[in-house]
Amino acid sequence: MAVPLADLAPLLLKKERATATFDVQSCLDVVIGPRDFQARRNYLRDLVIHDPVLSQSDMIYHNHQQRYEMGLQKSHAYIQLLRKHNITDEEERTWVYRVIREALPVDVHRAMFVPTLETQMDDEQKAIWLTKAKEYQILGAYAQTELGHGSNVQGIETTAHYDPKTQEFILHSPTITSRKWWPGGLGKTANHCVLHARLFLNGKDRGIQAFLIPIRDPKTHATLPGITLGDIGPKIGFQAVDNGFCSLNQVRVPRRHMLMRFAKVDVDGTFSKPPSDKLVYFTMVKVRVFIAWLCFRCVGLTVTIGTRFSAARMQGSSAKGKVENQVLDYENQQLTMFPMIALSYASLFTWREMDKIYNTMVEQLDGVLEHEHLFMLGQLHASTSGLKALLTEEAANGMERIRRACGGHGYSAASNLPYIFQVFIGACTFEGTKDVLVQQHAAFLLKCLHFPVPLTSEGSVDLLGFLQADAHSKCSATTPQQLREPQVLLQAFQVRALKLLLRADAAKTSLHHLTQASLAHAESIVLSCFYQGVMAVSDPKLQAVLLQLWQLYGLWRIQANLGEFRLDDYLSSSQGTWSQDQLLELLRVVRPNAVALVDGFGFSDFELNSAIGRYDGDIYRALIERATHEPLNATDVTPGYHKWLKPLLTKASL
Amino acid sequence: MAVPLADLAPLLLKKERATATFDVQSCLDVVIGPRDFQARRNYLRDLVIHDPVLSQSDMIYHNHQQRYEMGLQKSHAYIQLLRKHNITDEEERTWVYRVIREALPVDVHRAMFVPTLETQMDDEQKAIWLTKAKEYQILGAYAQTELGHGSNVQGIETTAHYDPKTQEFILHSPTITSRKWWPGGLGKTANHCVLHARLFLNGKDRGIQAFLIPIRDPKTHATLPGITLGDIGPKIGFQAVDNGFCSLNQVRVPRRHMLMRFAKVDVDGTFSKPPSDKLVYFTMVKVRVFIAWLCFRCVGLTVTIGTRFSAARMQGSSAKGKVENQVLDYENQQLTMFPMIALSYASLFTWREMDKIYNTMVEQLDGVLEHEHLFMLGQLHASTSGLKALLTEEAANGMERIRRACGGHGYSAASNLPYIFQVFIGACTFEGTKDVLVQQHAAFLLKCLHFPVPLTSEGSVDLLGFLQADAHSKCSATTPQQLREPQVLLQAFQVRALKLLLRADAAKTSLHHLTQASLAHAESIVLSCFYQGVMAVSDPKLQAVLLQLWQLYGLWRIQANLGEFRLDDYLSSSQGTWSQDQLLELLRVVRPNAVALVDGFGFSDFELNSAIGRYDGDIYRALIERATHEPLNATDVTPGYHKWLKPLLTKASL
Repeated sequence: MAVPLADLAPLLLKKERATATFDVQSCLDVVIGPRDFQARRNYLRDLVIHDPVLSQSDMIYHNHQQRYEMGLQKSHAYIQLLRKHNITDEEERTWVYRVIREALPVDVHRAMFVPTLETQMDDEQKAIWLTKAKEYQILGAYAQTELGHGSNVQGIETTAHYDPKTQEFILHSPTITSRKWWPGGLGKTANHCVLHARLFLNGKDRGIQAFLIPIRDPKTHATLPGITLGDIGPKIGFQAVDNGFCSLNQVRVPRRHMLMRFAKVDVDGTFSKPPSDKLVYFTMVKVRVFIAWLCFRCVGLTVTIGTRFSAARMQGSSAKGKVENQVLDYENQQLTMFPMIALSYASLFTWREMDKIYNTMVEQLDGVLEHEHLFMLGQLHASTSGLKALLTEEAANGMERIRRACGGHGYSAASNLPYIFQVFIGACTFEGTKDVLVQQHAAFLLKCLHFPVPLTSEGSVDLLGFLQADAHSKCSATTPQQLREPQVLLQAFQVRALKLLLRADAAKTSLHHLTQASLAHAESIVLSCFYQGVMAVSDPKLQAVLLQLWQLYGLWRIQANLGEFRLDDYLSSSQGTWSQDQLLELLRVVRPNAVALVDGFGFSDFELNSAIGRYDGDIYRALIERATHEPLNATDVTPGYHKWLKPLLTKASL
Repeated sequence: MAVPLADLAPLLLKKERATATFDVQSCLDVVIGPRDFQARRNYLRDLVIHDPVLSQSDMIYHNHQQRYEMGLQKSHAYIQLLRKHNITDEEERTWVYRVIREALPVDVHRAMFVPTLETQMDDEQKAIWLTKAKEYQILGAYAQTELGHGSNVQGIETTAHYDPKTQEFILHSPTITSRKWWPGGLGKTANHCVLHARLFLNGKDRGIQAFLIPIRDPKTHATLPGITLGDIGPKIGFQAVDNGFCSLNQVRVPRRHMLMRFAKVDVDGTFSKPPSDKLVYFTMVKVRVFIAWLCFRCVGLTVTIGTRFSAARMQGSSAKGKVENQVLDYENQQLTMFPMIALSYASLFTWREMDKIYNTMVEQLDGVLEHEHLFMLGQLHASTSGLKALLTEEAANGMERIRRACGGHGYSAASNLPYIFQVFIGACTFEGTKDVLVQQHAAFLLKCLHFPVPLTSEGSVDLLGFLQADAHSKCSATTPQQLREPQVLLQAFQVRALKLLLRADAAKTSLHHLTQASLAHAESIVLSCFYQGVMAVSDPKLQAVLLQLWQLYGLWRIQANLGEFRLDDYLSSSQGTWSQDQLLELLRVVRPNAVALVDGFGFSDFELNSAIGRYDGDIYRALIERATHEPLNATDVTPGYHKWLKPLLTKASL
């Protein structure tokens, strides 16, 4: 007799691991880092897994209010854990935090409030507030977005008027749409916030500045006079976070509550401008670089679940008696999963490369700011804007495709696919929506068409190299296989980017053309970073597999935008068809390594939190076990039966 | 002084309505039907709106368990309302049900259980069970899907062995993966289910058959002996529904509990096959036809919200002092919204056409079944499979694009965009996942390539007309404007469909090629149905606008699949560029009518349930009002503060 499906599933994953042509440990070395680093991360991860509060995973059964209260408990447990184990390094703290399965009410405090104090306060201000903030003795929110304005920061309406008599700023919400809306932790948790307002000195507009505003009483936690606070209500994700609103009615704070590292206001109301407007790019660029990492993580988690499920799941044709296939053997399933395995690696390598450029720049900027440095900063700002727009969109779309490819089980919370997606898609919006970012990016590129561009520092990916491409060239491949060659692929993306930029330049008023130019450039950066990452891999077996994955990714993107690559017949009709054939062939090449490639991300079952994405493939028993936790199953006959169903069932009329 | 944004928003929507070039009432006549029909629908809708239970909308604050209990209460209120107002017509009941803002625990009872009894029971069986089911004196589920098998019905493992001695069937779940999993209402609500199992007579496999199984005690509602029932836990949507599991341990039911309209088992265990295997297509086709309507409704609701919000929302460049624009004036926003307005109308007209063909066929099938009739049924089954795959995917993707284009407010439950999407995307999976459906569709089309095809009945869209196209032709447009011409557009879609089918025929093993062929054919049907619908509009002003929308839709689909349309240079590179230019030009043409076109769907504010999609455009006050309902706002200081935050804030160490 055939092995029952429930027992077969784990065997199938074992079989997958036996066919891999590379060593997964090699892959972990590339993805996570040196072995001692891996060991330390595992140690920190296990602290969370063994913590009775932080390991709780029954949040899916609760509503926003309940999850917020549980989120407070977890925040407390998190900070207690840091203190108990003396984890003081910010990166290590962040690592611990990421293992926790949901964003907590202190999310924005950690990720935005503390860093803003750090980068925007002068030393004297930091001495007063920074340590307190880092040690959670004050809790902060980051209140920039308003009901009426999000991505357009210049449009915000909150005002700050300086009163030299009392040496205070008067913060005020003059309209309905000026109330702060969305900031995480602002509703119930924070007792301070960094608040952005338009500064007026002597009636003169001095632009948007940041202020540290106490909003709740440090003793009682009651909302302070003149301030209205609350939670904005449920959202798609972040159920444990109190995204809030805040309006201010002529609230006064002392002069030194303006964050004064760059812009300053003297006692008499004299204004000192920051040394360069570009300095505000700093934190924005850092966050946008980080989002590439977030794409790696969230796509990686999702495609790990999807790939393992597809390998463990048998499903077949309706032909009677025929043995069914692993779902992962179907071409469409491969076309859904493999490009997303590739996108995870692509995002990881892109993040590394951008982070490297960012750090080089930070060092340079400690010196004198030359025109060249500012150009480089502008270039990095523009590129990371375009990359953020591209990667978040591609990641979100791919994650949802994976979920759909997992059928009904993908629709169930037990797969954890819904949760990962719901939280991730916030990133399509926060820190700038696509339409705004692609404009910023394309505007910079258009400038570069018309002004000389400084040379790139050695050892970095050449972000503007595509400008040197020949816009009139044609693809040189004379055989289908040549389309896989790195130089052929890289050139195709560069020429496409340049063509679309030139077209956008010719049609200046078209946002759509600017969008195409931005995304095409971002995509060519991703392809270059991914390639550079693969080339740096030292294990030849792993490198060979990652190179196949890179080729698959490039050909998949060509297919997805074939019209653009065929512009002016850069690719001929035949070459277009070849690119599809090659893509389908690469699916078969990558197939034996698919499970090993997702194992290589190194996500633990705890982080995956998925009945169908477990390492061991025991998916059916896991699904059944999960269902036992559903509170509705506590009783056989549901309480509402007596009140609402019985009258229906026992009488003809009510 | 400028008008405050909160006051400006309603004025902007008024302005939009003043610029429309057609009468919205004309549009309602097309979308909903004759005036008396509209009046009756409004009357029925208002019954729900004024019902104290059915009008409740605070479900977003509750978890699955709470919403299920509320769902029972609403089910009770719904049936009470039907009885009180003597609403007995099934279509009217359905209309009332759809106005309620969420799917209820009786959802599957209404939509699947009753119709299955109706179509699969013989008259004697109907006499016993059908009225009871219709009047909610028994409550049923539809238990087909198992833990191990969904879309592949032939793979289900539950068995039914006939015991001639007792004249009973013995139903059994032989494996872990054979337990029923997912059926709505099965966990807690239903006391009967239609259950699919593989029938064995005298050890001989007689295929999958349907049985009526009592699962809960009619007096106590307790689970019956031998049966295990429960809820599978939270999902993305359908929080008020108890999607359940069921396993059976040698459960016996009398012989006449098999649904015997087509297949029959005699007392002695003799099996009578159904007259045609094709008859099982019947209900499947009906449901797939219905899903086109569902796409109309859900895309329509979503794009109504998105379009009104985009018109009421001002957002601008960062240029200081410059007046901001309506978001709807941005090209990218138009490219997100307008094709989805078009897709709503396209889905509506496609639904009508398919429904017409379906009904013609039902009449024909009452007579003798000729080869031609069975072919027509096969053709409709194949086409609706492909349409279901195409429309659900395009609808879901477009709905998510709209949500993202609404920025942060789209991420908030107050917009209702998350809820509509989360429920809708179930339709990408239920009733067959894309990968299975496109195979069925393409397999039929491939057969048609090699065998003569009967003629289409007059007055219907010619579903297989594309087979007569010339696969070697080129697009005839010699000017950009010619690309808008109906014959040019329709032909482009037909040639593309034929080319992709021929390619799939040449590469028989490629599921990807089959998928492309299926989707291309489905898309050409949609374009034809949409065009036919527009041509039938009697008001010339409305017709002119809908024709523009149709052109926009066609050109948008060409852009989305430009690589396919450029295969063998059917479209030249210049024609490809023209198609983009024409699309962008049509955005400007459609722009003045955008808000009127969504008003024309006729969705009430109650059904939209969206703070940002209201008819009056008073979006900012509505968002603020919504937030007052959030339970977390009941107290200023959250209860968890004392336990979890205070110890942090007041001590350096815990």
